[in-house]
Amino acid sequence: MEKNRLEAFSDGVLAIIITIMVLELKVPSAVEHGSHTAELADLKDKLPVFLSYVLSFIYVGIYWNNHHHMFHATKHVTGGILWANLHLLFWLSLFPFTTNWMGENHLAPVPTAAYGFVLLMAAIAYYILQHTIIASQGRDSLLAGAVGKDWKGKLSPVLYLAAILLAFANVWLSDGLFLLVALIWLVPDRRIERVLAKRER
Amino acid sequence: MEKNRLEAFSDGVLAIIITIMVLELKVPSAVEHGSHTAELADLKDKLPVFLSYVLSFIYVGIYWNNHHHMFHATKHVTGGILWANLHLLFWLSLFPFTTNWMGENHLAPVPTAAYGFVLLMAAIAYYILQHTIIASQGRDSLLAGAVGKDWKGKLSPVLYLAAILLAFANVWLSDGLFLLVALIWLVPDRRIERVLAKRER
Amino acid sequence: MEKNRLEAFSDGVLAIIITIMVLELKVPSAVEHGSHTAELADLKDKLPVFLSYVLSFIYVGIYWNNHHHMFHATKHVTGGILWANLHLLFWLSLFPFTTNWMGENHLAPVPTAAYGFVLLMAAIAYYILQHTIIASQGRDSLLAGAVGKDWKGKLSPVLYLAAILLAFANVWLSDGLFLLVALIWLVPDRRIERVLAKRER
Amino acid sequence: MEKNRLEAFSDGVLAIIITIMVLELKVPSAVEHGSHTAELADLKDKLPVFLSYVLSFIYVGIYWNNHHHMFHATKHVTGGILWANLHLLFWLSLFPFTTNWMGENHLAPVPTAAYGFVLLMAAIAYYILQHTIIASQGRDSLLAGAVGKDWKGKLSPVLYLAAILLAFANVWLSDGLFLLVALIWLVPDRRIERVLAKRER
Repeated sequence: MEKNRLEAFSDGVLAIIITIMVLELKVPSAVEHGSHTAELADLKDKLPVFLSYVLSFIYVGIYWNNHHHMFHATKHVTGGILWANLHLLFWLSLFPFTTNWMGENHLAPVPTAAYGFVLLMAAIAYYILQHTIIASQGRDSLLAGAVGKDWKGKLSPVLYLAAILLAFANVWLSDGLFLLVALIWLVPDRRIERVLAKRER
Repeated sequence: MEKNRLEAFSDGVLAIIITIMVLELKVPSAVEHGSHTAELADLKDKLPVFLSYVLSFIYVGIYWNNHHHMFHATKHVTGGILWANLHLLFWLSLFPFTTNWMGENHLAPVPTAAYGFVLLMAAIAYYILQHTIIASQGRDSLLAGAVGKDWKGKLSPVLYLAAILLAFANVWLSDGLFLLVALIWLVPDRRIERVLAKRER
Repeated sequence: MEKNRLEAFSDGVLAIIITIMVLELKVPSAVEHGSHTAELADLKDKLPVFLSYVLSFIYVGIYWNNHHHMFHATKHVTGGILWANLHLLFWLSLFPFTTNWMGENHLAPVPTAAYGFVLLMAAIAYYILQHTIIASQGRDSLLAGAVGKDWKGKLSPVLYLAAILLAFANVWLSDGLFLLVALIWLVPDRRIERVLAKRER
Repeated sequence: MEKNRLEAFSDGVLAIIITIMVLELKVPSAVEHGSHTAELADLKDKLPVFLSYVLSFIYVGIYWNNHHHMFHATKHVTGGILWANLHLLFWLSLFPFTTNWMGENHLAPVPTAAYGFVLLMAAIAYYILQHTIIASQGRDSLLAGAVGKDWKGKLSPVLYLAAILLAFANVWLSDGLFLLVALIWLVPDRRIERVLAKRER
């Protein structure tokens, strides 16, 4: 039951994060564009905001997906796990802010680097959560076996760091790296599913 | 358990979408109307926004209702189903944006067409989700039998497409089609209920 | 399971409604007050908004509470119940709008009447939902027995109607009636609890 | 089941509170800063808002954590418990408002005192909820034993009161006290866990 409530709370926070990002997609207002507020050109202005929303939607989807699998392989929840989970949710809760800042100022290095920084911190928080769970469940636990060498988890922070630095040289390189990491993770994490299938039946 | 968490997450996102749309019903402010900010005329100005909110509320209600029935007839959840579901939620998450844009610019063709486009994409995403589930549950599954010929699912995208094109001729025709599709679906989808009742007892 | 998901969705919507109302409690901005944006006087200006928030919080609390009891006494959910429930949620979703409009324009008759109108429609929607459930569960069901003569449910719409009309004479009388109805309902609805206790054990 | 729905509703409200606070982290706009809206200096301006967000995030995390443990040790829910819980949620729902007001006006005494006042009222509401539960479960209940002398619960309101008063002398002292109380509670409440472990197995 403990675990259920942690999952429900996390699902609630992730559902809100993924949905409120779209609140930043403000309706084009008469003030900005004179009287032409209902033209296709208005949508074109919104394109960078929209694309950064799509990217962040995918990232939150990936986190929800992996969070889901990770806790499926978790037996009991300790105080340490609760706080490591809240720490992850904290960094994820900053996604709407950096998503919108980057979208409103595409091609600007600082917002792009800030977007990368929040991704980096979320990846580190996920890593800490994963290790807190493994530490409490035992080295030979289901999750430890499923995570294995965790090359994705180790590669991602390196790519985020590169994206942060590259933002000051060429923003498109950073954007490309953000997309690359998303694609790496979009391939569903079958490791836990596989190990579960092996053990459970 | 897998399924429960996907349903809970989807319910969370749908609950937020249906509720934040009303945030766009901004209180009439003194800036817009001089000092008369508490008159009946203020509400009349809000009428198109209000009516587009009602329409979208009904659409989200229909999606929640059908989503509910669809997953009731689903046994296990795969990675593909998870992502097809997120894809549907993505398009639904754009409802508040297009609802408000259309409401603020009623009689304008582009926002009306944009509203129709998001409805069309959501319908396609629903279709993909349905087929992903059927593909994983088997052709002779409960859901496959219940969906049957799925004339509603096939007719709706056609009507949305017509509404998008007609928006550039006469916006009222588009509005009429949006209403028509809602009415078609408002009749609750008894197919799954019926098949369930037949099989379960 | 059907029932669980309807309850979870309703809880989600009610949780969002009760929480987003406070978003309208905007931080006093420098634009409105010159440079004095952090004085006690700023809070005093917010008092009507705050009090209307408190009133609406209590109303949503009452609805959640009674909704909770009503579905506790409900066995199975039909399509009609689903839509009657969505209809109730629709009117409740307008609370943040009317709460803020009344708060920003206290002593103004139209926003006060609008607040009463949404309360009236929510009360009617609750009544419809209750009767839809009783109709599907049978006249001699748990809920039918628990509701009994339902004098609260019958008195409230009359008082709301009086409040709407009185708003155009004296707003304070309307405010008094809103408070009175809240107090009538604040006494928890022990009818269902009592009948449940009698039958179940 | 009663308990589950109260927990789910509370989780929903807490998830929304913790997430909407970040909505106040507005993207730096061109209006405020001329054309330089994407510089590191913009983030520096946001630092007090960000730090007050971090503090409130930790507080909501603590409340969720303790709420979780408290209801884990609760058997049945009465009408009194429902309303005591809603009373707690009411004060917690004001966190986003005071967090943002304090963040936007750091070093200003009134917003700092207001932040402390809401913390104080939430602490009192938590105390009332705890005693309502103990009163209904019996003096020798699990929760009563686990809470024990409750020195944290008794010390916190005193420290909040001191912080409110000190805000008018030196805001930094108040901020220090807010941080101190958070640190006192951050140590997870192992009392209930310990008593549970003893009794259950």
